[in-house]
Amino acid sequence: MRQLLIHAKSFARIENALKQFSDQISPLVLDDEGRLKHAWGESEASGAIAYGTQDAYFSPSVSTFFQTLMGFERLDWFQSSAAGIEHPLIQAVGQKAELFSGSHEQSEAIAEWVLWAGLDFLQGGARRRGAQADKNWTRLPFRELAGTKWQIIGFGAIGQACGRRLRALGVDVTGVRRSGGPDPAADRIVQPDAVSDQLGDADVVVLSLPLTPVTEDLADDAFFAAMKEDSLLINVGRGGLVDETALMAALDRGAPAQAYLDVVREEPLPPESPIWTHAKITLTPHISALTEGSKVRTDAVFLENLEAFLSGTSLRNEVSSDAFS
Amino acid sequence: MRQLLIHAKSFARIENALKQFSDQISPLVLDDEGRLKHAWGESEASGAIAYGTQDAYFSPSVSTFFQTLMGFERLDWFQSSAAGIEHPLIQAVGQKAELFSGSHEQSEAIAEWVLWAGLDFLQGGARRRGAQADKNWTRLPFRELAGTKWQIIGFGAIGQACGRRLRALGVDVTGVRRSGGPDPAADRIVQPDAVSDQLGDADVVVLSLPLTPVTEDLADDAFFAAMKEDSLLINVGRGGLVDETALMAALDRGAPAQAYLDVVREEPLPPESPIWTHAKITLTPHISALTEGSKVRTDAVFLENLEAFLSGTSLRNEVSSDAFS
Repeated sequence: MRQLLIHAKSFARIENALKQFSDQISPLVLDDEGRLKHAWGESEASGAIAYGTQDAYFSPSVSTFFQTLMGFERLDWFQSSAAGIEHPLIQAVGQKAELFSGSHEQSEAIAEWVLWAGLDFLQGGARRRGAQADKNWTRLPFRELAGTKWQIIGFGAIGQACGRRLRALGVDVTGVRRSGGPDPAADRIVQPDAVSDQLGDADVVVLSLPLTPVTEDLADDAFFAAMKEDSLLINVGRGGLVDETALMAALDRGAPAQAYLDVVREEPLPPESPIWTHAKITLTPHISALTEGSKVRTDAVFLENLEAFLSGTSLRNEVSSDAFS
Repeated sequence: MRQLLIHAKSFARIENALKQFSDQISPLVLDDEGRLKHAWGESEASGAIAYGTQDAYFSPSVSTFFQTLMGFERLDWFQSSAAGIEHPLIQAVGQKAELFSGSHEQSEAIAEWVLWAGLDFLQGGARRRGAQADKNWTRLPFRELAGTKWQIIGFGAIGQACGRRLRALGVDVTGVRRSGGPDPAADRIVQPDAVSDQLGDADVVVLSLPLTPVTEDLADDAFFAAMKEDSLLINVGRGGLVDETALMAALDRGAPAQAYLDVVREEPLPPESPIWTHAKITLTPHISALTEGSKVRTDAVFLENLEAFLSGTSLRNEVSSDAFS
């Protein structure tokens, strides 16, 4: 019998499905108020596993979640709902856990957010809404998505989910990743060192790569200087990929024309940040994956991996222990 | 030699391509100031043809365009850039012209507008923008497009262009048209008399059908009463399809939740109309086709049809004279 640490909201979604494993796991359920409860009664447990979800990561009780986790004598397996592992708390969990698995099930939601951002930019959503507010019947033209050129930097699960949709809509997709190509979700794959040559050709540049010492500040002065006028920057990776001072200066110069950001360096963004009110920035608070579908798909991965873990077979999306050192 | 009546902006785009027919046509070019000019010099002409585009229809000189047209002794052929033929001026032209052809090349642009509207609604664009304006880091969830159910009423060129994109994005598409199905752009095709049964199932209802005595006020009190909460109405057909008083009352009751309208009954919409300021209506001024791509594709249809007309073969998108009576 192992303890399973899980947030109450996640538990409510999958309690029925978990019952088939009730002779092997004992759920320890944490609510938003920080209360821990043995949902099926206390049992003698040896070792623990945990399911880290957005319910836990964005709960007021998040510190209790990680304290409980780190307090376990043995952590046999940690399933995260996210793909990112650069957060110090996740790094600590990864070092403690015997096995660690992530999830790419949020990619489909993020790709829809990216499509929303791209269309709202190309169609001039802000100008349209301004005209309506002014009762101004002005027939503003817009740019078609079909035929635009997108450069997607970081062509993992998120980049591919974007590329599949965009290609179906007639977009010319360049994917950037170290491992090369080809990939059916892109018209072409290029290596990271070719990015600067390609930037001047892109109508839309999407950042969808992890934050590492190598990728930090990837989008700096030189990067923006290579982007063209009337282009768009989208960031659904991590705030640290972008030099925000350089971005605002570039927007003020006019290239790129706008930025749609779901992530910023400091989250929550402090009220005094000029990002909030910059006329050319559309900001959402790290929610590009926040859909019911993301939760349901991730729950399915967890349940599949739970069965694999309990039967001793290999996990989907297992992250090597080398990633936590 | 025939005269070709054409707006100056359209002429500027295709003058080079027209030159191959310079022994058969003599362009009579109308600018926004209402000046008419024989672009290649005056020549003895017998009969006339004309190319009606958005450049002409939305020009300050539009009345001169139609007066000139109706003043021709003989109008052998009229090519319109639009699919709609219900406007009284177009009806008059259709009655006068020996041959009349339309165009569906705007459908691709309109389908992108529809996708923008659907995504902005499902993602809660207005709430997001409000939160940014309030510097409120509130993690609002959104609904995924994939898995939503759309009912597209009028499954001609526009409906199909929408359906193709939506199906590629995982949407369940019901197309409504008299001629039945199947159609690869829809999961199913239903007859117009089945619409009311299906409305309660749809997350998004798109009106993309022509305005006729039968379709006028299609979306009335009973129609909206059948729609569900959290649903969206999109109108890219004609304003007359919707009883606007009934729509606003329905939005105030909460079903549908929002409306995105590119067309209204009276265009331009008068400043005193409550549609401008209704919190649940996003309005654009009949621009869902207003892209460079629409113009370029329509020009290609005109040039293809011009060659066919001059060689006496059949026209693409010819509209039967029965439609103008």
